[in-house]
Amino acid sequence: MLNGHGDDTYKYKDIRINFSSNVYNHFCHDGLYAHLASRMDCIRNYPQPTPSELEKEIASLHNLSPENVIVTNGATEAIYLIAQAFAQASSLILQPTFTEYEDACKQYKHEIVAPPIPPRGEQLDSISCILNSPPSGGWGGLLLWLCNPNNPTGQVIPKQILETAIASHPDIIFVIDESYAPFTKETLIGCKNQFPNVITLHSMTKEFAIPGLRIGYITGPASLLSRIRKCRMPWAVNQLAIEAAHYLLAHKSDYLLDLDALMKERERMTRELSAIDGITVYPSDTHILLCRIEGTTASQLKDFLANNHGILIRDASNFKGLDEHYFRIAVQTMDENDELAKALKNRLLC
Amino acid sequence: MLNGHGDDTYKYKDIRINFSSNVYNHFCHDGLYAHLASRMDCIRNYPQPTPSELEKEIASLHNLSPENVIVTNGATEAIYLIAQAFAQASSLILQPTFTEYEDACKQYKHEIVAPPIPPRGEQLDSISCILNSPPSGGWGGLLLWLCNPNNPTGQVIPKQILETAIASHPDIIFVIDESYAPFTKETLIGCKNQFPNVITLHSMTKEFAIPGLRIGYITGPASLLSRIRKCRMPWAVNQLAIEAAHYLLAHKSDYLLDLDALMKERERMTRELSAIDGITVYPSDTHILLCRIEGTTASQLKDFLANNHGILIRDASNFKGLDEHYFRIAVQTMDENDELAKALKNRLLC
Repeated sequence: MLNGHGDDTYKYKDIRINFSSNVYNHFCHDGLYAHLASRMDCIRNYPQPTPSELEKEIASLHNLSPENVIVTNGATEAIYLIAQAFAQASSLILQPTFTEYEDACKQYKHEIVAPPIPPRGEQLDSISCILNSPPSGGWGGLLLWLCNPNNPTGQVIPKQILETAIASHPDIIFVIDESYAPFTKETLIGCKNQFPNVITLHSMTKEFAIPGLRIGYITGPASLLSRIRKCRMPWAVNQLAIEAAHYLLAHKSDYLLDLDALMKERERMTRELSAIDGITVYPSDTHILLCRIEGTTASQLKDFLANNHGILIRDASNFKGLDEHYFRIAVQTMDENDELAKALKNRLLC
Repeated sequence: MLNGHGDDTYKYKDIRINFSSNVYNHFCHDGLYAHLASRMDCIRNYPQPTPSELEKEIASLHNLSPENVIVTNGATEAIYLIAQAFAQASSLILQPTFTEYEDACKQYKHEIVAPPIPPRGEQLDSISCILNSPPSGGWGGLLLWLCNPNNPTGQVIPKQILETAIASHPDIIFVIDESYAPFTKETLIGCKNQFPNVITLHSMTKEFAIPGLRIGYITGPASLLSRIRKCRMPWAVNQLAIEAAHYLLAHKSDYLLDLDALMKERERMTRELSAIDGITVYPSDTHILLCRIEGTTASQLKDFLANNHGILIRDASNFKGLDEHYFRIAVQTMDENDELAKALKNRLLC
């Protein structure tokens, strides 16, 4: 398991503003809290061994059959279950990306097929190039892991490029993690696609800003999902998480992001930060911004911001293909973003 | 995964009294509920990737080092992690017992060494006999899985017999699930034992009657636990479960069972049920009672009690070595137990 994920507020005193996980921190959870408080008695009973009622509800929301849905203990359990279901497969992971794909694949003895890591800003268009240069044995039996929109770059692969790749490689299983779907205006593959070789992952953590509860789900063809289902342990999802999920799905309208405003704010923040000497900001299609700082390390910058400003960023140096100068932020409110920009400017004046 | 665990209240309408899981249903959770309601904001953040703070606290309570403790998503995750850490080992599972040991071992391709299943009431003394008759290749590399006190029999292996077996088989790893420790007056191996070949499992679910929250832990030698630790995924334990665990460990005195009274009530209930024609009750060292009914199946009995009396029992026919006539109950309050006895008597008069 990686040492050094985001949201490590517990390492510092008095973090006021958290840019370090990709969660948007400004939903109002009052209704959810009241609901959970009223349902507290549910902890006296076991959850369903597998959360079938919730799976039915999610399926019905998306016009899918329940056999096309697996609810998991966060999208992380989804990743580990898929790696387990396809133990010892070959896996191609486009880097830099969320480290858990590789960790899970290693756990289950996949052969990791590592494509060359292209320079920042180019990696996502490279999917076609990579897939058009198969190894001598071909791509048969391969899993291709994609985070789309990607973490830590926030970039989205254009839908048409991805669809062409999927359609022309029916022998490859595409595992597409769409955890950040709520934070982009780009069109994604989504859970209603008809491809027999695509599994998509979804994160209620990200959509509803509830990382403490651990709830996500997998959608995909019944044949692939039945293989994944066999790897589950019972009671993996906590009953309060299940209760919260039912509530949130019934109250989606309380959790509508103003995506236009958020994307505009990302653009503004990109300009603000890019104007600071020594900071590079990479293009993003979401609220996630990958940045690079010269003359210091991301780790030093993180400590400085946490200790002097109560601001937490993500040291992104432990993403494969990135070095000690990369950091990542998730855009928050205008005031908070301004505080970060100001702290960064002041620091460089020190 | 087994189809037909206990606590399946969701299959019936209006269950009033639940004997079907091994949880004692009569703790007052008001303090816990209020605490969780006050800490609800914790769901806005990720839990620690592994719950190290809680592990430190549990270690300190037991005078262990944190490297001797792994907190898990219920004791069930503990079982699956151990099976995974020792993938492809040989495993000896004394039956009948909790089905997840075998399910987890099969998941991770263990060779299941099946000892003959002795008649009811005798299985637990048979550990010495079994261990003294190794296969031709010897017991090397073997895991021996024990639920002690056992589910579904409620029986405890006398400590001396177990200690002798452990000491004389240093090449066997004993995985001892002590989830039901709070419900017996017998002496157990416990987490403070000095054996290098013993891993013990603990269930906060059972101790504090919080099955909906999913929290348990493993204790054992650092060398064995470091192997298990490598198999964990991050964020497996929900933050509300972690908050609850901290609260409960600090408020243990609110959760003291009157064990003398509970054991007396078990004796009374054993006499009551044994006096009913066609019902056999097997000896138990806990609040768990394994019973057998003649002339009908446990499944029919379960439906009858649920639909006519709002009483839920556990159909125990899917435990290995048991047949369709076995059912299991966990003794509750005197009034509730009387209702069950009365319903059983009435049924036989019908």
